[in-house]
Amino acid sequence: MSDSPEDLGVDFDVVVIGAGISGLVAARELETRSPKTRILILEAKDRVGGRTLGVEMKTAKYTKEYFDLGGQWVGRTQRHILGLLDELDFKTYEQYEDGDKIAQMGVSKPRKYSSKLPVTSLRQFTIFEIFDSIASFAKLTWLTRFINPFDYFSSKKSTNLDDMSVSKWSRENCWTRANQDAIDIATRIVAQSAGNYLNLCECVGDGAQALKINGGAFQVAQNLAGNLENIRLEHAVSEIIVDEQTGITCIKGIDLKNNQVFTFKCLHVISAIPPNQCGKIQWTPSLPDLKRRLFDGCMQGNLIKFVVTFEVPFWKTNGLSGEIVSTGRTPNIGEVHPIICTYDGTTAIGAPAIIGFMNEEYADKPFNERCNAVVNDLIRFMGDDALRHFLDYKDKIWAHEQYNGGCPSIYVPPGQMDAYQYIRQPFYNVHFAGTESATEWIGYMSGAVQSGYRSAHEVLQCMEKFDKVTYEHLKGTIYDQEYCPPKLPSNIYDETRSPWWRRLFFMSGLLFGIYAYSRHYRLSIVARTVKPIENRLVKYFFDVDWPE
Amino acid sequence: MSDSPEDLGVDFDVVVIGAGISGLVAARELETRSPKTRILILEAKDRVGGRTLGVEMKTAKYTKEYFDLGGQWVGRTQRHILGLLDELDFKTYEQYEDGDKIAQMGVSKPRKYSSKLPVTSLRQFTIFEIFDSIASFAKLTWLTRFINPFDYFSSKKSTNLDDMSVSKWSRENCWTRANQDAIDIATRIVAQSAGNYLNLCECVGDGAQALKINGGAFQVAQNLAGNLENIRLEHAVSEIIVDEQTGITCIKGIDLKNNQVFTFKCLHVISAIPPNQCGKIQWTPSLPDLKRRLFDGCMQGNLIKFVVTFEVPFWKTNGLSGEIVSTGRTPNIGEVHPIICTYDGTTAIGAPAIIGFMNEEYADKPFNERCNAVVNDLIRFMGDDALRHFLDYKDKIWAHEQYNGGCPSIYVPPGQMDAYQYIRQPFYNVHFAGTESATEWIGYMSGAVQSGYRSAHEVLQCMEKFDKVTYEHLKGTIYDQEYCPPKLPSNIYDETRSPWWRRLFFMSGLLFGIYAYSRHYRLSIVARTVKPIENRLVKYFFDVDWPE
Repeated sequence: MSDSPEDLGVDFDVVVIGAGISGLVAARELETRSPKTRILILEAKDRVGGRTLGVEMKTAKYTKEYFDLGGQWVGRTQRHILGLLDELDFKTYEQYEDGDKIAQMGVSKPRKYSSKLPVTSLRQFTIFEIFDSIASFAKLTWLTRFINPFDYFSSKKSTNLDDMSVSKWSRENCWTRANQDAIDIATRIVAQSAGNYLNLCECVGDGAQALKINGGAFQVAQNLAGNLENIRLEHAVSEIIVDEQTGITCIKGIDLKNNQVFTFKCLHVISAIPPNQCGKIQWTPSLPDLKRRLFDGCMQGNLIKFVVTFEVPFWKTNGLSGEIVSTGRTPNIGEVHPIICTYDGTTAIGAPAIIGFMNEEYADKPFNERCNAVVNDLIRFMGDDALRHFLDYKDKIWAHEQYNGGCPSIYVPPGQMDAYQYIRQPFYNVHFAGTESATEWIGYMSGAVQSGYRSAHEVLQCMEKFDKVTYEHLKGTIYDQEYCPPKLPSNIYDETRSPWWRRLFFMSGLLFGIYAYSRHYRLSIVARTVKPIENRLVKYFFDVDWPE
Repeated sequence: MSDSPEDLGVDFDVVVIGAGISGLVAARELETRSPKTRILILEAKDRVGGRTLGVEMKTAKYTKEYFDLGGQWVGRTQRHILGLLDELDFKTYEQYEDGDKIAQMGVSKPRKYSSKLPVTSLRQFTIFEIFDSIASFAKLTWLTRFINPFDYFSSKKSTNLDDMSVSKWSRENCWTRANQDAIDIATRIVAQSAGNYLNLCECVGDGAQALKINGGAFQVAQNLAGNLENIRLEHAVSEIIVDEQTGITCIKGIDLKNNQVFTFKCLHVISAIPPNQCGKIQWTPSLPDLKRRLFDGCMQGNLIKFVVTFEVPFWKTNGLSGEIVSTGRTPNIGEVHPIICTYDGTTAIGAPAIIGFMNEEYADKPFNERCNAVVNDLIRFMGDDALRHFLDYKDKIWAHEQYNGGCPSIYVPPGQMDAYQYIRQPFYNVHFAGTESATEWIGYMSGAVQSGYRSAHEVLQCMEKFDKVTYEHLKGTIYDQEYCPPKLPSNIYDETRSPWWRRLFFMSGLLFGIYAYSRHYRLSIVARTVKPIENRLVKYFFDVDWPE
């Protein structure tokens, strides 16, 4: 490994594509562990931070303050982001949770509750709904036991799950509307692999929404970027060409500011952009089949986040926590209310706000309509105070953000899950970061940090700047000494047979058909074999003689 | 509408993106109907033709001849392509079909048959397999009645179908392995909307594979391109920016030959590239939600087509038609044979060849391995003659073709079908062509021709170069006077309730639980109400006294 990249005719040792949290963490880790490495960071947008974003809003306390329109919460078990926050000297504070919450399931009226999940409040729900929700939560928790984040198809269960959508699962496994709704809401706003299903929905304890970062999560990327050189904004990569002999990789794209084509040659690449954006790049040579299917087939969620600031936190004085969950459905087909869920969004220094997520049906509506709809919906849930104390409204339709295409993370449509487990597989010298490639807290900032470390360690391993030791972050990668390739679900074919009861049903139907046919035509087979059996059976059970 | 585009500050009246059959047909139609229109055609590849492609191979008759590695067959009901072939003076000839066909289902041995479909040959298949296949074909044909190509969700059936993959459907609805295989093979090589399911699989009569074009289908695009000016090859579009006020559209991209950024302004755009490639373009303003989900979520099939030329058509002399269908499965999990299906590929002037499609598992294998595997598989089915008379082998992995990404056409993963019906919806002045946007023979050359005409007529309508008459091709578009927007499946939510038997099961389980509980604890309710009923029932049926 040469220390001077010029000798090999390359411009940089490592090119990092994407200046979100994972790309910046990877670059920082490379710089820390191997300070002489020449790193270039390319970012298609005109800002760093990826799916974290700050916005300035009018508040009560100060004239202006920043709020997060992107990633925001940190959970107590998200050790990778917590470790980074500690290193960067960021403080966290707890999500406000005291008081009653409000839930609206189906087309029923909003109901207050104070327990963990809306479905466990006995007085508000029917006994059917409670039994059903306990059963399905147990079932989901049981199913998560079968999914190994390093090898999804090591169990039969997961191949069956790959064939259906969540809504189909809930319709097949949940028997009440309220419970289908609860799962519907939960899956709209969360992602996979958080240890257990309950954790994903929860604000307290080990929940994913337990803590917020003082000053806003968007500052993490800005802080990281401030200590790195060679970040080029508005550089959109369009083509990655790997020389199969030398391994030298050529990164081509458009400098959007100057409308010029750029070309950089490098030895290693860290692709720290979402998989759906990897799919927009032309790869030479062609990606392997599974990787291509993953990049082409995955889709970004269509999350719309909004922040509303108020003069006073009226919900607290009214005994509410600020938490609302709702399906947004109305009795009229096609009509929807905007709010899916909200939380108290009061900042560390105490500026009152409500933050929440909006039904994707509102993505195509203009800003004024979205703002009015949200405020009206808040009035519906929390009363007229929401209008009286209103200060400012901002929102972000993440699906409309270019070079991103959605939030919070990708989902893989049914039938493509077999490709997902190859997300961490390097392609020649291209390594893949991004929260989707994490093994813990996929889709969260913590997953982004973990994947950043892992991809940096992969590159260090390739550059032989690392001892041949299996580091924690390299677990499950091809650099792991215990690595074995993930199992492919090619055995679906051989393991799925018709269930016994279907065969039995088919067989007995056929036998009955033959019997009825032969009786009707009085075939000799009846007289010879069936008649004696018939007579004996009917005599035994009904004590009468069976007619000819 | 001005006749001189310079007045409006634009470079062209119409920019057509993509020089496949649909783009070239659209440009030709525009030029024919409105000769003064200034048209530019941009093509990212270094050739025209899209998913049609010719390849030169060694043959017996002449030293070299061209074969189709892309779209090839024409069906007798494909009126749009037949009309075009007639105009361009192309001749067709019949697909050779005489003699026995060979089928291998599951892991069983290859079996010969001479009927329409492999599953109707009585002697070769078990009675279960035959019953099952007739039932499922009837079911599929019945299901196609519910799908309206202009409005997929006008029936309840289609919302249910949208939730599952074909393999799940076949596992739920087909009871025998042989029939699951037959459907598996069929769906791998065909697409939607051909009138009925049987037509898709058939070579004779109204089947999609009835006719071939003299000289090769790839010549159609070359012929069309020869009569058009202003085709720029190696111009890859990366960004489309619509000015919402003026409607003027800016097309940005890379001139791959000269590594320069190009920018063209125009009044109308026809996007004649596959939907998955539309998804790789950055759109400003953002696409509406459904269109974005369609472009991002759709995937191209991974078809690998091969042609093998021979000195003599030995299969004909051995009484075979050259047709093979196979799952390629072996008793060993993970191992697959390459051939999915083959046809006689003899050219119009009589050069013997076999053409076929390969299992996608071979996409990542090197050329030599693919060639050897195919020849060995042909030997397995047709005997040693396949090796003795072997001349040449060529194949095409369409998924590896840049700016295309697969063949024969896109498929939409479960849950995204609601977005598909918006494929023909214009976006400002951008109109969408391509075989995927057709309403007849989607995925075939005929669909490409139909969509080319439709998009050209849409542009003519916008340019007011067309009388306000509902032309045939504009049926179902927003220019149709009878247009009504397609129904969205938003009512899934309100129409799916638990079936009655599930409610009954739940209720009776609950009642039995209460009964058993109260009996066990000898609650007063037992003595007062349940005991008399118990006593009477047990006395009546079993003539004994029920204990306390």
